[in-house]
Amino acid sequence: MDKAGWTSGFSGQDLFDFDLKMAVNLIEKSRAKVIGIQVPEGLKRAAPFIAREIEKRTNATVVISGDPCYGACDVDMELCKDVDLLIHIGHSEMLIGDPELDRVIYLEARMKVDVKEVVTKAASLLKSKRVGVITTVQHHHKIDEIIEALRERGIEGMVGSGGERLRYPGQVLGCNYDAAKCLDVDEYLFVGTGKFHPIGVALSTGKRVIAADPVSSEVVLIDPDPMIKRRYGAIARAMDARKIAVLVSKKPGQKRWNEAHKMMDLGEKNDKDMILVYLDRIEPDVLINLGVEAAVCTACPRIALDDQAKYPVPMLTPPEFEILLGECVSKNYILDEIK
Amino acid sequence: MDKAGWTSGFSGQDLFDFDLKMAVNLIEKSRAKVIGIQVPEGLKRAAPFIAREIEKRTNATVVISGDPCYGACDVDMELCKDVDLLIHIGHSEMLIGDPELDRVIYLEARMKVDVKEVVTKAASLLKSKRVGVITTVQHHHKIDEIIEALRERGIEGMVGSGGERLRYPGQVLGCNYDAAKCLDVDEYLFVGTGKFHPIGVALSTGKRVIAADPVSSEVVLIDPDPMIKRRYGAIARAMDARKIAVLVSKKPGQKRWNEAHKMMDLGEKNDKDMILVYLDRIEPDVLINLGVEAAVCTACPRIALDDQAKYPVPMLTPPEFEILLGECVSKNYILDEIK
Repeated sequence: MDKAGWTSGFSGQDLFDFDLKMAVNLIEKSRAKVIGIQVPEGLKRAAPFIAREIEKRTNATVVISGDPCYGACDVDMELCKDVDLLIHIGHSEMLIGDPELDRVIYLEARMKVDVKEVVTKAASLLKSKRVGVITTVQHHHKIDEIIEALRERGIEGMVGSGGERLRYPGQVLGCNYDAAKCLDVDEYLFVGTGKFHPIGVALSTGKRVIAADPVSSEVVLIDPDPMIKRRYGAIARAMDARKIAVLVSKKPGQKRWNEAHKMMDLGEKNDKDMILVYLDRIEPDVLINLGVEAAVCTACPRIALDDQAKYPVPMLTPPEFEILLGECVSKNYILDEIK
Repeated sequence: MDKAGWTSGFSGQDLFDFDLKMAVNLIEKSRAKVIGIQVPEGLKRAAPFIAREIEKRTNATVVISGDPCYGACDVDMELCKDVDLLIHIGHSEMLIGDPELDRVIYLEARMKVDVKEVVTKAASLLKSKRVGVITTVQHHHKIDEIIEALRERGIEGMVGSGGERLRYPGQVLGCNYDAAKCLDVDEYLFVGTGKFHPIGVALSTGKRVIAADPVSSEVVLIDPDPMIKRRYGAIARAMDARKIAVLVSKKPGQKRWNEAHKMMDLGEKNDKDMILVYLDRIEPDVLINLGVEAAVCTACPRIALDDQAKYPVPMLTPPEFEILLGECVSKNYILDEIK
């Protein structure tokens, strides 16, 4: 039987390296019979291909997680219960030591793309002779090359080790910039795709950030001001809200009950009409159907920052809610991070 | 502190009876401290109001389930784990005896609407002197009134007891018509809102069905033919599909692994390129991102029947997939039901 159909539309192999061999070895050694696989949306098309490869090489049955996956914070725990091993693809390990995640293998997707050229290009925009180097899991295996390319331009690249949520030195997540903040530098070089992470670095550290995208070869100075303006706009629009929902995520790495209870108490103390809502996906309909006037999101901090436009009411992070209530007097914008 | 805000927009109290007192008694007796509440989308606006009432009367903390809820098959198991009691509103008990559901209280929403007038009106459309009477949980408490109104018009109303998924005699679900099929009658009277259930009765029994809607006072003869045509259309469009996903739901009352494995085997036997996908919500994006050409849905049977238009590829029920593969030779359309 020809099963090639699934591979025809998938070009992910050209861009990414998965260590499928390691996964296959682990499956064989553990004698796992039912394997779950979970991939982020950008790689979803690869899931049937990976399923086929595993089935061909191991004779295990593969079940694909069909729900969207947004990060290592978002392990499919339901699938995990029904399989012998869950292969979570595209993110580095998080929540290390959680016994519920014993069965999860993290299979990173490493980008096969040169970084040297774009780093050399970025060097001309850097003002300091000593900069913090940060990247995402897709490029962390190139960190030595980044440092080397900087050195050739007379710049010292510093790499921070980050906190518990981070697997690699120099790695940042949408929700955690410890690997940047721990460095005593005035400027950062971010190597990776998109502005999601470098804006986070700029907001979290308040320092100058140059972003170098090795896929598009684009190099830009990050300007966090439009984001900061939008966030103060959301806070201002929430001023008159009385009916406020505090949202708690079901996703294992985004579940912050303590933060949520703290926000409930703060809201009630300030005469707001608070409800506590537990949910998996934060869809606009939830807020519409519940009739709330604003929401405080204790899930992924980037939901409020990046997806505000899709919600019918202001969606605030916990620090923003504290600003709204006058409970926080910081002069600077405080980025919500998960430790 | 005035918390009346939440009740202002909610008119559900006029239409529905909830036995909140019973719930409050149970909370007090069990000394539960954290209470979850889960309501279907149509009653979501009532959730904050119910939360307030429980908090006022018991001092327990209430957490609202924010994800959509489609029936008693769709109990929020994640929320259940984090609370002492989960109050599931608007549906009758299902999955009786499941130890994981020990903590769930089902609080039915009974519609406060007269049925006599619409049943009398429907009687003139009935051809038989002995008809099966069927309804949904919102109206089951009126079943004696329905029988009485029929008797006054010289018609005997028969009530079937249904199977394990059903709590009340005469009750049907979108996925189960045992309470209709067990009766030896040629005609049915359905009392309730919408055409979702009466079309199911017509498809399941192949008999004449009159639907009487006590809210709109509308009485109609149900014509299942357009639905049957649409379904054979979907089967025909799936003819050339090779890459096919079998979907398994995470929802406790919709999870049919055995059915899914049977469909996988049937597909593979017939040279289809099958993948097995486990998911909570069956969104069109799942099928687009995975690149499938057709899907077999082992979750709620009504997803294929009622929501086909929103999916980019044919979505078949298991019996429809058997028709596609020539594995089923029934002359009549076979409705997928969950026992």
